[in-house]
Amino acid sequence: MLGRGEAVSVDEALNILHSSYTPPEPGREEISLHEALGRILAADIISGTHLPEFPRSSMDGYAVFSSDTFGASEQIPAYLKLAGEIVMGETAPGPLSHGQAIAIPTGGMLPDEADAVVMLEHTQALNADELEITRPVAPGENVIQPGDDIRAGEAAFTKGHRLRPQDLGALAGIGITRVPVFKRPKVAIINTGNEIVPADKSPRPGQVRDVNSYTLAAMVRKAGAIPVLKGIFRDEFGPILEAVGSSISECDLVVITGGSSVGTRDLTEKVINGMEPGIIVRGVSVKPGKPVIIGMVSGKPVFGLPGHPVAVAVCFELFLRPLLREISGEIDPLAALGIPGVRVVEARMARNYSSSPGREDHLGVMLKLEDGELWAYPVLGKSGLIFTLVKAHGTAVIPAEKPGVAKGEKVTVRLFD
Amino acid sequence: MLGRGEAVSVDEALNILHSSYTPPEPGREEISLHEALGRILAADIISGTHLPEFPRSSMDGYAVFSSDTFGASEQIPAYLKLAGEIVMGETAPGPLSHGQAIAIPTGGMLPDEADAVVMLEHTQALNADELEITRPVAPGENVIQPGDDIRAGEAAFTKGHRLRPQDLGALAGIGITRVPVFKRPKVAIINTGNEIVPADKSPRPGQVRDVNSYTLAAMVRKAGAIPVLKGIFRDEFGPILEAVGSSISECDLVVITGGSSVGTRDLTEKVINGMEPGIIVRGVSVKPGKPVIIGMVSGKPVFGLPGHPVAVAVCFELFLRPLLREISGEIDPLAALGIPGVRVVEARMARNYSSSPGREDHLGVMLKLEDGELWAYPVLGKSGLIFTLVKAHGTAVIPAEKPGVAKGEKVTVRLFD
Repeated sequence: MLGRGEAVSVDEALNILHSSYTPPEPGREEISLHEALGRILAADIISGTHLPEFPRSSMDGYAVFSSDTFGASEQIPAYLKLAGEIVMGETAPGPLSHGQAIAIPTGGMLPDEADAVVMLEHTQALNADELEITRPVAPGENVIQPGDDIRAGEAAFTKGHRLRPQDLGALAGIGITRVPVFKRPKVAIINTGNEIVPADKSPRPGQVRDVNSYTLAAMVRKAGAIPVLKGIFRDEFGPILEAVGSSISECDLVVITGGSSVGTRDLTEKVINGMEPGIIVRGVSVKPGKPVIIGMVSGKPVFGLPGHPVAVAVCFELFLRPLLREISGEIDPLAALGIPGVRVVEARMARNYSSSPGREDHLGVMLKLEDGELWAYPVLGKSGLIFTLVKAHGTAVIPAEKPGVAKGEKVTVRLFD
Repeated sequence: MLGRGEAVSVDEALNILHSSYTPPEPGREEISLHEALGRILAADIISGTHLPEFPRSSMDGYAVFSSDTFGASEQIPAYLKLAGEIVMGETAPGPLSHGQAIAIPTGGMLPDEADAVVMLEHTQALNADELEITRPVAPGENVIQPGDDIRAGEAAFTKGHRLRPQDLGALAGIGITRVPVFKRPKVAIINTGNEIVPADKSPRPGQVRDVNSYTLAAMVRKAGAIPVLKGIFRDEFGPILEAVGSSISECDLVVITGGSSVGTRDLTEKVINGMEPGIIVRGVSVKPGKPVIIGMVSGKPVFGLPGHPVAVAVCFELFLRPLLREISGEIDPLAALGIPGVRVVEARMARNYSSSPGREDHLGVMLKLEDGELWAYPVLGKSGLIFTLVKAHGTAVIPAEKPGVAKGEKVTVRLFD
């Protein structure tokens, strides 16, 4: 039985986990850029090309020798001979000579000899052959030089980067349409409980439908990992031990979710301790989620979560989501800056809420806008009710060192997304 | 040509769009709960059952008649006869009589007659037959009543709700494993420009690889919609008009992305105005993204975005993302509270930045942590460079009414995710 004295703080639990476990580098696969959104790069990407590969105009105007425009003004314009126009996507019809200007669209390729572009607004075509320029341009002005975006040989991306929409565009821009990515972590979900029946079956009296497999599988998917549903198991040592064993060989992480009774907790504990090295954390000072068990089996983490769906969600956020990011090989620059991985808002508590000292409380809250301010209303309800999580917009965290929160006090709310 | 005077503010553009367009209710489809994460409910969901369907214990302990415990204390305990135990997932072996107690695990089903559960901690089994109880329980104490989570006939979810992990669990809990959802919006992406070649081709001098199709398709996908890549088109009226026409019939929204030259803008404008009712917004006071064109064709919105990849990203966030949410049928309670759809942080500007009055500036920034504070470093670079977006962690928005931001001043940064 999990005694109160054995529970450690959330930080202690994370420290124990980190000292027992360093995720190995994930396997790799090569995939099409079209499928790569959200995937983690498995290698540094070096650009094989300058982008752009040629000098481009950043304006509609005229490509010129900049020295031909020096000193030009409204009073004393420079006059250049018109040498035709550059067609988008093509090279100049011929080399440019001093004293000449050639029309160029935004994005057009400069003739080899030209070194600047005069904006259309600072010119006037006097006739088909002659252009008046009323402002000088400096060398390179209004020109994007080869390699200005990225240079050949330059690191475009580093290993561990999670690919965002603009990253896919940038990779396309340098001609990389297949990318090496880490394989996504696999998470085994073992659902235990004599009372649990599949959600599409009619429960007999005393039985309940499976809730946690659906919640957990979706959370795993949102975290960029692959859920492997092992099924529903009766509270019996042998079959659960076997399920954990087969999960360990095919997955990177195992989650056992079960009842909240002492008997089922004892069973999960016995199963994990039946394998080497066994349990490393037995209870965490967090509400809900206190009976969480963390173990290591054959070098892979095994979590025993209480059956309580709210505890499952809280434990996922506290332990599994950050762990899955590590296992996935992601190096998140924003996490390194202390920025949470979910949307967070400040709100005022709409009620007094008291918490036990030494225990971190995660409280489901509904947000309302009153007098231009956000107010957090605790979603009340007996423990273990899934619809309290449905009604909540997020969770307010009451830190372990606080005895509670007074009405009107500010709290940080982590939003569900 | 898009003159400066024609541009409207971002809010004006959104107002014009809203007054010209109300998205029709999307089509419906029925899908498995396993595939429903992130999808939008197309109907209210009424629970057909009480959850739980029977009274459940919320503690490990003993089911009793509460009246049998009234007045019990450490000094004068109540004594009850032990009547066996409730097995998880099964009904009680028989009815409970006054003066009896039956062991029950957390989640176990109470016998019909029992009305409360005494926690294990407040009891002591004196022998196999007799139990000592040292604290009274009130009627209903430690019991989750039928329908406490949700009642039969109660609205579980309302139409327009986006399904989160816990929602899938809750639906499973009430036995709903197939759900009616709105069909996802389809977004046609038409890429124009004589200089654009597919990303897997080698560009000739003057040509560049397609960047925007990849960025836009990924942004559309992240917004829960389906990108339909129509391909790359030369800057010619006929083929683009035809592509828009076929897009309008198969998609809910059309995006034309093209060069930033006056010629290509004119062409996009001519194409949209070639169909009824045509352009409704011609330029927005935003940097980057000013040349954006918004039109309506056969009751569907058509966007003409500049080719500049940074402008594409900014215009997507400003106009397309909120619009896609409406088209998808989502009713977002957090948006109604003014909470942005992306993570937002406050940071101090690391440099002075001046902006034109009347123009809203979106500035790519890199975040750094210095002396415990976040600082936003503008990612400098000539306009239109995709790697400025790759280096940025998000965008700082300089509102239209501000002439700029001084070094050290706080700015709001919308993070890329």
